[in-house]
Amino acid sequence: MNMHPFQRRLLSEFVGTAGLLATVIGSGIMAERLADGNVAIALLGNTIATGAMLVVLITVFGPLSGAHFNPAVTFAFMLRREIEKHHAIFYIVVQVAGAVTGMIVAHAMFEEQIFQLSTKVRSGPAQMFSEAVATFGLVLTIFGAVKHRPDAVAWLVGLYITAAYWFTASTSFANPAVTVARSLTDTFSGIQPADAPFFILFQFVGAAFAVLIAGHLAYFDKADD
Amino acid sequence: MNMHPFQRRLLSEFVGTAGLLATVIGSGIMAERLADGNVAIALLGNTIATGAMLVVLITVFGPLSGAHFNPAVTFAFMLRREIEKHHAIFYIVVQVAGAVTGMIVAHAMFEEQIFQLSTKVRSGPAQMFSEAVATFGLVLTIFGAVKHRPDAVAWLVGLYITAAYWFTASTSFANPAVTVARSLTDTFSGIQPADAPFFILFQFVGAAFAVLIAGHLAYFDKADD
Amino acid sequence: MNMHPFQRRLLSEFVGTAGLLATVIGSGIMAERLADGNVAIALLGNTIATGAMLVVLITVFGPLSGAHFNPAVTFAFMLRREIEKHHAIFYIVVQVAGAVTGMIVAHAMFEEQIFQLSTKVRSGPAQMFSEAVATFGLVLTIFGAVKHRPDAVAWLVGLYITAAYWFTASTSFANPAVTVARSLTDTFSGIQPADAPFFILFQFVGAAFAVLIAGHLAYFDKADD
Amino acid sequence: MNMHPFQRRLLSEFVGTAGLLATVIGSGIMAERLADGNVAIALLGNTIATGAMLVVLITVFGPLSGAHFNPAVTFAFMLRREIEKHHAIFYIVVQVAGAVTGMIVAHAMFEEQIFQLSTKVRSGPAQMFSEAVATFGLVLTIFGAVKHRPDAVAWLVGLYITAAYWFTASTSFANPAVTVARSLTDTFSGIQPADAPFFILFQFVGAAFAVLIAGHLAYFDKADD
Repeated sequence: MNMHPFQRRLLSEFVGTAGLLATVIGSGIMAERLADGNVAIALLGNTIATGAMLVVLITVFGPLSGAHFNPAVTFAFMLRREIEKHHAIFYIVVQVAGAVTGMIVAHAMFEEQIFQLSTKVRSGPAQMFSEAVATFGLVLTIFGAVKHRPDAVAWLVGLYITAAYWFTASTSFANPAVTVARSLTDTFSGIQPADAPFFILFQFVGAAFAVLIAGHLAYFDKADD
Repeated sequence: MNMHPFQRRLLSEFVGTAGLLATVIGSGIMAERLADGNVAIALLGNTIATGAMLVVLITVFGPLSGAHFNPAVTFAFMLRREIEKHHAIFYIVVQVAGAVTGMIVAHAMFEEQIFQLSTKVRSGPAQMFSEAVATFGLVLTIFGAVKHRPDAVAWLVGLYITAAYWFTASTSFANPAVTVARSLTDTFSGIQPADAPFFILFQFVGAAFAVLIAGHLAYFDKADD
Repeated sequence: MNMHPFQRRLLSEFVGTAGLLATVIGSGIMAERLADGNVAIALLGNTIATGAMLVVLITVFGPLSGAHFNPAVTFAFMLRREIEKHHAIFYIVVQVAGAVTGMIVAHAMFEEQIFQLSTKVRSGPAQMFSEAVATFGLVLTIFGAVKHRPDAVAWLVGLYITAAYWFTASTSFANPAVTVARSLTDTFSGIQPADAPFFILFQFVGAAFAVLIAGHLAYFDKADD
Repeated sequence: MNMHPFQRRLLSEFVGTAGLLATVIGSGIMAERLADGNVAIALLGNTIATGAMLVVLITVFGPLSGAHFNPAVTFAFMLRREIEKHHAIFYIVVQVAGAVTGMIVAHAMFEEQIFQLSTKVRSGPAQMFSEAVATFGLVLTIFGAVKHRPDAVAWLVGLYITAAYWFTASTSFANPAVTVARSLTDTFSGIQPADAPFFILFQFVGAAFAVLIAGHLAYFDKADD
């Protein structure tokens, strides 16, 4: 199996992000279909599936590519110069491609039309602020975990998103690739394409702010523990 | 307690698979009886019980037999020549026997008629595709975990199935022995016998495809970490 | 703080078993009051609280007393001669006293009458069989975990009971001290006193059978791992 | 990023407590809005978010400041002389400020009026007793974990609070800073200001009692283990 190491990293980002989106969108469809109109119950199913899958995906793909699955995370690592700019661009392209593929897999499994556009409105300053908070928390969690409990990064990200589905008003997309793919599904987890750019903008803002605060918390200091 | 080591492995596969099916079918019955018609709530109970039990069973039986409990997993290890063909056949026979025993235990606990045939239709290409995806993900998770976090295999499989109950349209059987046993229960988790062979076929397809991708991800390379 | 080491072990069993019962009975009351008649939702709340608390209690009291909190577990260790008979008797007395104390704490917190007798019927062979299965699984889990993952005993017991609340028809009491205390509450988790002795009998049967099977699985062999 | 080490500890307490309250109050609002009147379902969402977030926050902020986020915990460590009195006062001020900030963030995300006063009555001896029990258990869990499984403190606190939301009649505030902030939100998790001082008083009582019992359990002995 001769594959160039960087190709392998991209394959890892692709399969991982596809797995994440198949889970987010697929479990959203399943949960809404079964929940008999109770949205909190639907969100519980969606949350448990997503949180559990993140632990799995980050554990098995982390050693290969870092398991970003998220352009905002790749951007944050780029700000820290832990990934080179031209590598980061490849990462982001592959993440978006993987996310769209995961959306297609979810639609195929649930006999949904493959290509859709969401009609779910998610707009307004409170939603933008939610996304900035959600992504700020995600990136801070990652840097804190990498510094202090690198063996637990997968768990902490899974738990963080589990919480963030509930404590943010936007249910915490916190990921531009996820946002793009969810704009292409008119199911439980969708977001109308017109609202997606604002989500994405505030996700990058939140990520950048997390890099700033992480510095103050000494998460980038190499010395001691 | 003189038992031949291979007999002990078979006993481990038998008890473990029985425990798994008692949990899958038993918790399905309990959840459906109590959920007052809300299928999402029933699936939540079924999911939590199954995921939790998988962590337990794989932890306590893993060191004895590898804790496959699943002919598709045994098949994948056979493709990798990590279990010999004639051993694999014994494993699979014992897994199916254990699964049926677990079904009987569940029926006995819940005062169901011991032998039943399911009437639940689970057919069509989307269901087949779901099973291939589910088993692909399961086997990839196992190989990835064995390579990178062998101490966490039990957790990762439990979490993967927790997610897969929700993100696949078939609720992720992902296991031929489970499929056989579930064809013999006309309760929440059943599948009509006519549909079972298709599920099983696509489970093996998903497992084989996972072996292929796992190779590309270097999960079988012995060097370094 | 001069306390005799064996007194400290008893204090640990007392506080731990009280904590367990306060959780089982208290969360049952809370869940039933809030669940608006949906028993599956009530059982979810009861399950999550109990499973989570078991992990906590076994972790913080395990190093002190072994964290049995359960006469059937103490009995199993006595069969294995890992606790002396006269120590076991003290353990069991203290466990029952702790369980009753926990029941009182739960009633006081929820403004229930302190002393009650349950009127909930839990009888018949399927219930007895369920308790034997539940306790068999619990004790087998403990011995397997002690042998192969002693650092994870608390987690595995918490997860096992999480599953067993759902996959057994009796919701898995699996503990004679718990059974006594639950006969004294006429709330969600109660059992009428007339049914309690049968539960307790079959719990001991399940525990004894687990010791037998654990021997065949080499869980008591000291050599290697 | 030159920051005085003690300033960094305060920043850690501030951000962590803000994150905790944003989660507790935010997920409460989300859960109540979606749960269609079923309070048990709302509490499930609130519980899962809070428990998960505690694991994250304590893991990433623990190495910086101890991750108290709780004046009752700081008080308990002060009784043990593990934090100096004048440091403790700074901690407590910053915790309350962080908690109020988290409340504001939650209100902003959910388009609630920023400043509110709760009208939810939580009074009477059973509620007081519940808070004493809840805080007793929390502080005992922390001391037991610090002694016997320091690597697992974050998990155990998260699991403890997960259980305590259900087994105490007050849903376990167990934290004076949390109590202050929750008196300032008239949403799911609120408490009317008039009842807050009683909660806080009994939280300190529970914490002090936990220090006493922890001594008897040898949690403060340095030798062995």
